[in-house]
Amino acid sequence: MNKIYLDHAATTPIIPEVLAAMEPYLKDYYGNPSSVYSLGQRAAHAVSEAREKVARAIGAKEEEIIFTSGGSEADNTAIKGVVFALQNKGKHIVTSKIEHPAILSTCEQLEKHFGFEVTYLDVDKEGFVDPEDVRKALRQDTILVSIMLANNEIGTIEPIKEISRIVKERDIYFHTDAVQAMGQIPIDVNELGIDLLSLSSHKINGPKGMGALYVKRGVKLLPLIAGGAQERNRRAGTENVAGIVGFAKAMELASEKLEENVAFLRKLRNKLINGIEKNIDHVILNGPRDEHRLPNNVNFSFRYIEGESILLNLDMLGIAASSGSACSSGSLDPSHVLLAIGHSHETAHGSLRLSLGKGNTEEEIDYVIDILPGIINKIREMSPLYEG
Amino acid sequence: MNKIYLDHAATTPIIPEVLAAMEPYLKDYYGNPSSVYSLGQRAAHAVSEAREKVARAIGAKEEEIIFTSGGSEADNTAIKGVVFALQNKGKHIVTSKIEHPAILSTCEQLEKHFGFEVTYLDVDKEGFVDPEDVRKALRQDTILVSIMLANNEIGTIEPIKEISRIVKERDIYFHTDAVQAMGQIPIDVNELGIDLLSLSSHKINGPKGMGALYVKRGVKLLPLIAGGAQERNRRAGTENVAGIVGFAKAMELASEKLEENVAFLRKLRNKLINGIEKNIDHVILNGPRDEHRLPNNVNFSFRYIEGESILLNLDMLGIAASSGSACSSGSLDPSHVLLAIGHSHETAHGSLRLSLGKGNTEEEIDYVIDILPGIINKIREMSPLYEG
Repeated sequence: MNKIYLDHAATTPIIPEVLAAMEPYLKDYYGNPSSVYSLGQRAAHAVSEAREKVARAIGAKEEEIIFTSGGSEADNTAIKGVVFALQNKGKHIVTSKIEHPAILSTCEQLEKHFGFEVTYLDVDKEGFVDPEDVRKALRQDTILVSIMLANNEIGTIEPIKEISRIVKERDIYFHTDAVQAMGQIPIDVNELGIDLLSLSSHKINGPKGMGALYVKRGVKLLPLIAGGAQERNRRAGTENVAGIVGFAKAMELASEKLEENVAFLRKLRNKLINGIEKNIDHVILNGPRDEHRLPNNVNFSFRYIEGESILLNLDMLGIAASSGSACSSGSLDPSHVLLAIGHSHETAHGSLRLSLGKGNTEEEIDYVIDILPGIINKIREMSPLYEG
Repeated sequence: MNKIYLDHAATTPIIPEVLAAMEPYLKDYYGNPSSVYSLGQRAAHAVSEAREKVARAIGAKEEEIIFTSGGSEADNTAIKGVVFALQNKGKHIVTSKIEHPAILSTCEQLEKHFGFEVTYLDVDKEGFVDPEDVRKALRQDTILVSIMLANNEIGTIEPIKEISRIVKERDIYFHTDAVQAMGQIPIDVNELGIDLLSLSSHKINGPKGMGALYVKRGVKLLPLIAGGAQERNRRAGTENVAGIVGFAKAMELASEKLEENVAFLRKLRNKLINGIEKNIDHVILNGPRDEHRLPNNVNFSFRYIEGESILLNLDMLGIAASSGSACSSGSLDPSHVLLAIGHSHETAHGSLRLSLGKGNTEEEIDYVIDILPGIINKIREMSPLYEG
């Protein structure tokens, strides 16, 4: 099994405080929150407290939080929920080329099956969306703009405040996918000026199968999952009470310990970036440096080799890492993000993402810096593309 | 807190074997199943084993199971997934008036926002759909029929085999919501002749926030949650590994111990029905008797009184019960199911559902039979409608 875990952008372990918070709801307090008797009301109370915690962590109000089964459901609910509710007003959506597949595939569905038009904005070589490009893309029939808060592959933190200001000059809804940003940068929905924001639990040391969508008061939304009256008629289905409680605990901790975590992660990240750049030739750091990059994200392209070969070699040494997004692994297509920032197919294939978390140590980073050059050299020596 | 739990149709406790199966995936094996390294592959293997267990429990193949976040998502995926994929072929759906809200609200969305037409079939006074009514409702443009396997409020087990035979004479998909039926009656998707079947974990002593949709090989489906390639491109989002493993364990146990559970539940159910009918006047058993009724379902209308008052009195004595479906509690509308079987608004309001589970005992049933007449009399004496 993997002793050094450097794939926190893919998923994170549940931390003990979170699991401890969940346990009573996995065992004794199993009531359905919609039931009127004590056991049910106990569960309803836990959900309500959890909702307040999640809201507080992003500066929202309790009634603006919809619990979902994860970030992908939150993204689908945001996009489809808004555009199906507003389709009589217009059928144009603006997004970027480097969004998460949950946004891009949803947009493709809407184009192919429901007659919507989508503008996919280019990004620059560090992955930034230009706010002026957003302005130029807006049309009379634009009903929604969705730009992620931070990119899951290369860690680019987008200028969301500037973008939202431009979008909100018009009567257009603005959604941001904050799945990778949560716990890494401060998030206040009012300060950012956004209408809808997606969150995921398992990226911030909470349980899998949980997420949330912030929906600003007054925003129209057609439920993705219709049925019972749960979540104020916006998301049907018996609440995953233990999951909700665990997610809320994780949100609370991510928010309370933000500064401390960021300082710790940035230090490890910079050490890792510097170490790799110093010890290995022909490497390209993907994404920006410093404060515009997620504190836990490192992503390099190693020329002349395949990312998968690096992963397998790292795995043999007990190190868990990724060649891109876990959501597209198993696919032979190169990362759409790396292509969008201007890489060739070949260079895009030779990428490695190392994403840090609170369990990592300086010793682990030193070890990776130590062994990675040997792995890269070994693979390059077998590569017909490499000439030394 | 409630000492006697008689609301197993609303939700059930996680049994220890299920929680034990989940625990390793809540703790050590936290990898993302889409990751290539060992920790991820361990999770992927667990999901694959779980899928096989769920498939086996209903006579399906592994690749025909899509994990969802619950029964409501499964229902929404089935209905929207099929009709959006087939809307060029036709836009007519047939269902019944006593379906779960996840079906009915979805159908209403499709009528209101997407131009579909829905036929809602009547049921008889015991809640049965007449297969001949299904035949009469089918049109040239009918693309989907959805009739539940068993009703969640009054326990009616529908003649699904007869209905599916009629539907499958034509080139029309047939979906059944088996959320309440699982663990109560044998389910074999081939024998029943169905194309899509919804399941929920928390109704069968598994964790909340989990469910599945059986989709027969070859059935076209537009994903409700688009994004990553999980679930063979039919349901995006990082898998809730612990939830999936727990659900699969619950499915395995529900299937293996079916006969034993059914015999036990039927005995308690009949004792409770007989006891109430013997000791209390002006009662009407809602739903059929004997083998056409779910083994764990008891539902009575008590004339001249409000179901909510009974619930509150029971709760004070530590007994958890329901006045209808938990999904519609909080609403002042009477049960759509009780109205559909011919009750007046008044009689529908005076109903009580007692649903049994494996933790119940004969002593508990004796106790309820003993105290219920006093509660009913007390409430009736305060009722202006009751004249003794």
